[in-house]
Amino acid sequence: MKISHIEHIGIAVKNIEESISFYEKILGLKCYGIEEIKDQKVKTAFFKLGETKIELLETTGPDGPIGKFIEKKGEGIHHIALAVEDIEQSLKEAEAKGIQLIDNKPRPGAENFEIAFLHPKSTGGILMEFCEKKQL
Amino acid sequence: MKISHIEHIGIAVKNIEESISFYEKILGLKCYGIEEIKDQKVKTAFFKLGETKIELLETTGPDGPIGKFIEKKGEGIHHIALAVEDIEQSLKEAEAKGIQLIDNKPRPGAENFEIAFLHPKSTGGILMEFCEKKQL
Repeated sequence: MKISHIEHIGIAVKNIEESISFYEKILGLKCYGIEEIKDQKVKTAFFKLGETKIELLETTGPDGPIGKFIEKKGEGIHHIALAVEDIEQSLKEAEAKGIQLIDNKPRPGAENFEIAFLHPKSTGGILMEFCEKKQL
Repeated sequence: MKISHIEHIGIAVKNIEESISFYEKILGLKCYGIEEIKDQKVKTAFFKLGETKIELLETTGPDGPIGKFIEKKGEGIHHIALAVEDIEQSLKEAEAKGIQLIDNKPRPGAENFEIAFLHPKSTGGILMEFCEKKQL
């Protein structure tokens, strides 16, 4: 597989407005977009830091994956997304090498990406995402 | 402060050789350096992924910070390092805005960087590092 860069780092937060304020007022970054992903029960806010985005994630209901994550582990880094050239091929290659996949097939993510997660059991405790920008 | 990019992501691992194998054989990255930081009781391995490095961290003793981290939380992301233009000024600015610092002054890190950590209590549960490349 070909990974070009870290596309984004997903960060689970309790209150997205308060967290936006931290990234803007303390770190001097600029939130350039807020998006709700209904399928994932999550509200996201994006910042750009070089070629990598910071993606803040607030749950829109306690039963969403981010709500469950925060209940168990508290606020913090939720996942790392790696930009791959060919997501379907990358998933096949990882699976063939014994990596446990959460998503066998890509599904739609924020910002017109196709995304798929690898299981943290196979990656040294890190929830890793492969992502590929969809051709519109 | 001026943050240009994510300089590296620090990942706590139990066995650095096994983890290097995952990043090389599964993700296709190339480990370009291994360094021991005696002061931090840690052995590090570096990979480059676009403009960001992956820094694997294995403790060289159970009482080192990475040993304690793994005992408490298991393997996974330990910290995120933000490349700043002026580390002393960035620390002053963060402190003036009410951020709790772990290091009031920069100290030497791997790869000839000056580094300083911010407390996760002030940053939404993430151990954040400021770093600046030393002029040799």
